[in-house]
Amino acid sequence: MTLDRSSLLPALKNVATRLRIDSLKSTSEAGNGHPTTCCSAADVMAALFFSEMRFDPKDPHNADADRFVLSKGHAAPILYAAWAEAGAFDRADLMNLRKIDSDLEGHPTPRLPFVDVATGSLGQGICAAIGSALNARRIKSDYRTYVLVGDGESAEGSVWEAADVGAMDGLDNLCGITDVNALGQSRATMWGHDMEALASRWRAFGWHAIVIDGHDLAAILDALDEARRTKGRPTMILARTIKGKGVSFVEGKDGWHGKAFKKGDELDRALAELETQFVPAPVGVNLTALIPRPPTRPRGVDTPKPMAPPDFKVGDEVATREAYGVALAKLGEADPRVVALDADVKNSTFSDKFEKAFPERFYQNFIAEQVMVGAAMGLAARGAIPFPSTFACFLSRAYDFIRMAAISNVGIKMAGSHAGVSIGEDGPSQMALEDLAMCRAEPNITVLYPSDAVCAEKLVALMAYHPGPAYMRTSRPKTKVLYGNDETFTIGGLKVLRESSSDVATVVGAGVTVYEALKAYDALKASGVNIRVIDLYSVQPVDRAGLIAAGKATGGVIITVEDHYPAGGIGDAVADAVADAGLTVKRIAVREIPRSGKPEELLDRFGISSNHIVSAVRASAPVGSR
Amino acid sequence: MTLDRSSLLPALKNVATRLRIDSLKSTSEAGNGHPTTCCSAADVMAALFFSEMRFDPKDPHNADADRFVLSKGHAAPILYAAWAEAGAFDRADLMNLRKIDSDLEGHPTPRLPFVDVATGSLGQGICAAIGSALNARRIKSDYRTYVLVGDGESAEGSVWEAADVGAMDGLDNLCGITDVNALGQSRATMWGHDMEALASRWRAFGWHAIVIDGHDLAAILDALDEARRTKGRPTMILARTIKGKGVSFVEGKDGWHGKAFKKGDELDRALAELETQFVPAPVGVNLTALIPRPPTRPRGVDTPKPMAPPDFKVGDEVATREAYGVALAKLGEADPRVVALDADVKNSTFSDKFEKAFPERFYQNFIAEQVMVGAAMGLAARGAIPFPSTFACFLSRAYDFIRMAAISNVGIKMAGSHAGVSIGEDGPSQMALEDLAMCRAEPNITVLYPSDAVCAEKLVALMAYHPGPAYMRTSRPKTKVLYGNDETFTIGGLKVLRESSSDVATVVGAGVTVYEALKAYDALKASGVNIRVIDLYSVQPVDRAGLIAAGKATGGVIITVEDHYPAGGIGDAVADAVADAGLTVKRIAVREIPRSGKPEELLDRFGISSNHIVSAVRASAPVGSR
Repeated sequence: MTLDRSSLLPALKNVATRLRIDSLKSTSEAGNGHPTTCCSAADVMAALFFSEMRFDPKDPHNADADRFVLSKGHAAPILYAAWAEAGAFDRADLMNLRKIDSDLEGHPTPRLPFVDVATGSLGQGICAAIGSALNARRIKSDYRTYVLVGDGESAEGSVWEAADVGAMDGLDNLCGITDVNALGQSRATMWGHDMEALASRWRAFGWHAIVIDGHDLAAILDALDEARRTKGRPTMILARTIKGKGVSFVEGKDGWHGKAFKKGDELDRALAELETQFVPAPVGVNLTALIPRPPTRPRGVDTPKPMAPPDFKVGDEVATREAYGVALAKLGEADPRVVALDADVKNSTFSDKFEKAFPERFYQNFIAEQVMVGAAMGLAARGAIPFPSTFACFLSRAYDFIRMAAISNVGIKMAGSHAGVSIGEDGPSQMALEDLAMCRAEPNITVLYPSDAVCAEKLVALMAYHPGPAYMRTSRPKTKVLYGNDETFTIGGLKVLRESSSDVATVVGAGVTVYEALKAYDALKASGVNIRVIDLYSVQPVDRAGLIAAGKATGGVIITVEDHYPAGGIGDAVADAVADAGLTVKRIAVREIPRSGKPEELLDRFGISSNHIVSAVRASAPVGSR
Repeated sequence: MTLDRSSLLPALKNVATRLRIDSLKSTSEAGNGHPTTCCSAADVMAALFFSEMRFDPKDPHNADADRFVLSKGHAAPILYAAWAEAGAFDRADLMNLRKIDSDLEGHPTPRLPFVDVATGSLGQGICAAIGSALNARRIKSDYRTYVLVGDGESAEGSVWEAADVGAMDGLDNLCGITDVNALGQSRATMWGHDMEALASRWRAFGWHAIVIDGHDLAAILDALDEARRTKGRPTMILARTIKGKGVSFVEGKDGWHGKAFKKGDELDRALAELETQFVPAPVGVNLTALIPRPPTRPRGVDTPKPMAPPDFKVGDEVATREAYGVALAKLGEADPRVVALDADVKNSTFSDKFEKAFPERFYQNFIAEQVMVGAAMGLAARGAIPFPSTFACFLSRAYDFIRMAAISNVGIKMAGSHAGVSIGEDGPSQMALEDLAMCRAEPNITVLYPSDAVCAEKLVALMAYHPGPAYMRTSRPKTKVLYGNDETFTIGGLKVLRESSSDVATVVGAGVTVYEALKAYDALKASGVNIRVIDLYSVQPVDRAGLIAAGKATGGVIITVEDHYPAGGIGDAVADAVADAGLTVKRIAVREIPRSGKPEELLDRFGISSNHIVSAVRASAPVGSR
């Protein structure tokens, strides 16, 4: 049943007023929050939730439900108010906003079933919305994705990365609405209410742009309708609004960002004014009951086929980045949920092997790492298993997205190639020497670092099915295959590659430094000194028991060696794990900014080659001391 | 003396040919590199260096010299070739490209005197160029800044952050040239040779845009002239070029990105073709001799006045973020080189105190952290002392820029407010819990973390004059002033706040956890247990000797407590520092993704309150054990 506009508009107007009232009440009760930015968005929110979107308030995860992403996450109170109005939960719960035992947090997180990805770091929600829109294509659904963007937020470069990708991919199932309230946190935005300045940007980036009065419900409905009928490209509705709309003493005023109304007079005055804004509406119209429900498709049981096993020969020379590409293509064959995202380095990361096999599940973002990771977040939230990959150093471009992926606990499966000084001549700008620190810092990111091709292949499958975000670091140089094709690996595991009953130290390497450790083993052995050699392919979590056992068996000495800066890397991971065990952990790492040169020259110059391991062993455990 | 075009154009054409030849020879000698992207840019480079820019090849640091930033850093060989052609160094050195003992690295770094900031991570050079252009205003110089951008690079969101800021600030002393060669690394760019697609973007962002044939030297000169005459906004010249231009068998061909020509037939064939492209030029024209020299201004001796001392009272409640703002304004008074950059949170970081005092040295970037940090890099490279500040968590948005600032070793002085769970109700998206890990990972970044206002003020001055990049973490809550106004602090120092001869453990805190440690001290003391309490305000470097002495004096037990995730933070810093000393380091940190709540609730819920310190002390050093 569709209401005619004469019934719909007053009903929507009253919803908008209720959303404003709820936003004010809940933030005042919390004592802080962002009521005025809720007020500017209230009419758009009312129209979206109660006339445009199809969804089931009781089943927000429905695969075919339209998606709404609140990219301007600080407007969380009105998001919660809208879902409460729709019946997702009891309106009284709104008064628990921002309390420690409520999931109605200051900014939205997926603790709430109707939130796909955490927002609150601006410019990210629109990138996740790209992923959500791509996912509709993947599952052949006609659901639409809506994203509410702030005007101040539009200064973030990531918004324009999303703009490029959305247009390039022709995502006409995506509709953005910019809440142009002209005020940022600390002052007027760059554009104020110059609507054409914003519209011309979106048009230049290939979007259909519509400028409207964001408090004119008929205009909002018309624009949403126009967006739905626009084919071949996404639409951005630029809604001219007033911050604090509805409360005259704050409307359009600077200095009210992020301030709750004081309970008592101030709040009462605001609420009284809002109460006067209810309009006569047709009796018996229940907009919530009229929300169109999505089709219910049988929940697909995802039973991936087993992935084809590795097919390498011990001693072959294969770069782990290449093995990553091989594995990704095999995994794509085994599981249709697997997708890959690139930032124009597919021929370096070898994700082009996946593209070749599954071009329709390969998403090119060109040189734009933020939208690559952001889109992966949106895809993961909607059931895909996304592998975004680029040079490991350039994942630092998306660190804020990775941080928010951790907060969202979404299963993005990142791979970063070209780790460390072992890349050689390209120099420090292309060397990742802080990527382990960056990813390990997030407590729920799994961090893997294979040294050989077999391990790399098997870790790709493990990370795909391990819950939450994961990161795999791969290397540029070809390295010898160490493991048989049937070797097994586990997240949180390690491999002891050399051991004897007379080991004087445990040397822990990972990736390229495993080979340096093996060289050091040979050199020391020739002079009668034995060491234990460990391949720490799982850097987070680490095998604490295995490390302690090795350390205790080797005179209490552990030497870590990594193609990474010392802080936050393998040495710290090992030291933290064995902190209680009374062992000494000596860290060998890259301790200064490196430079261009040949890989083997750089390993030696920057202190992580076998020579340095040999010296460290001799210094830590002088021959004859045991 | 100005040449007429009939003499100039053939001479420039021959320069361009020489630059192509040098780019090919040097990359082939190195065995790797990017000759084809040099070839597309050769005519633009020839025109810029030998007809447009004013500089002294022997004194590239001259304060009034025009600046050139190679934002597409992988075209390094032609940058080096241009400077060699200009006489900055011997052309024969070009053959040492990418060798370990040459400063002619794979991508440019400031090891070379004519490179202001390292490039090679795309989308950053143009942000640094914004800073360079702002600096011209600061020092009242009419020098111009030129930046060569790649077309593929233009997909990076940071390019559009720079576009916004450049237009908003009306930087008509800035001229960009986009080398539109239509090929990225792995495939055609998003736009190919659709010049209007790019031009309309720049126009929409408020720049003057000029589309030209990038191999037509007269057109290039005309465009540069037009740019120079364009007032009130920056200019972007969109130069349509051919990747590999001049070598017919690679021109416009995919698959040649990042490949050197093989020495022998392949290189010889290419060079032979280039040799044919020399044209007759007027005898005796020496373009290098005609490069206009910048004025020589007396090198100003920068003797900042002493900064006004702190003016707090022990026991007052002041947030360190507020003390940061106070200090920044005082420092600005003492030293005109000090500038501040904001991303629309000046009223939260308190950098608005600086803006109020020195509006002309305050640069607003709106919500765009990448260009904020990038512009700071450009400013620092030109002699300013820039303080970019925002919420600490949002500095993660600019991590790749911070990484490149470390590689550049430029003195950007970052401040991040709202650290940790102690911010309270806003929730995890606004909490920095990995910022110490992020900054500590870079070996040359100084990391500071004051607990009180006096310390915060003094650290601002210390970080300003300490060479290289620095980061200061500030807190949201008000905290008691602990130190007298005449207390002294040093980079690499710590403060012992409580000690006795019977301490059973050393508790190391920083920022808000210092106060938790002091509460724990009081609680334990009441039950007859003494602990030593350290304020570790310098997190990188740390006072190794001081920590070891404290640990040894307190039963070998150190307990660290931090409002940060465990990996890469204070615990790891301390553990690494004392690794050889036979001490036990127990880390108390935030071990899971937090949520919204009141600050004191969150400190307790996430394990870093005084209660947890008391428990850890009791567990580590049971009463009566000593």
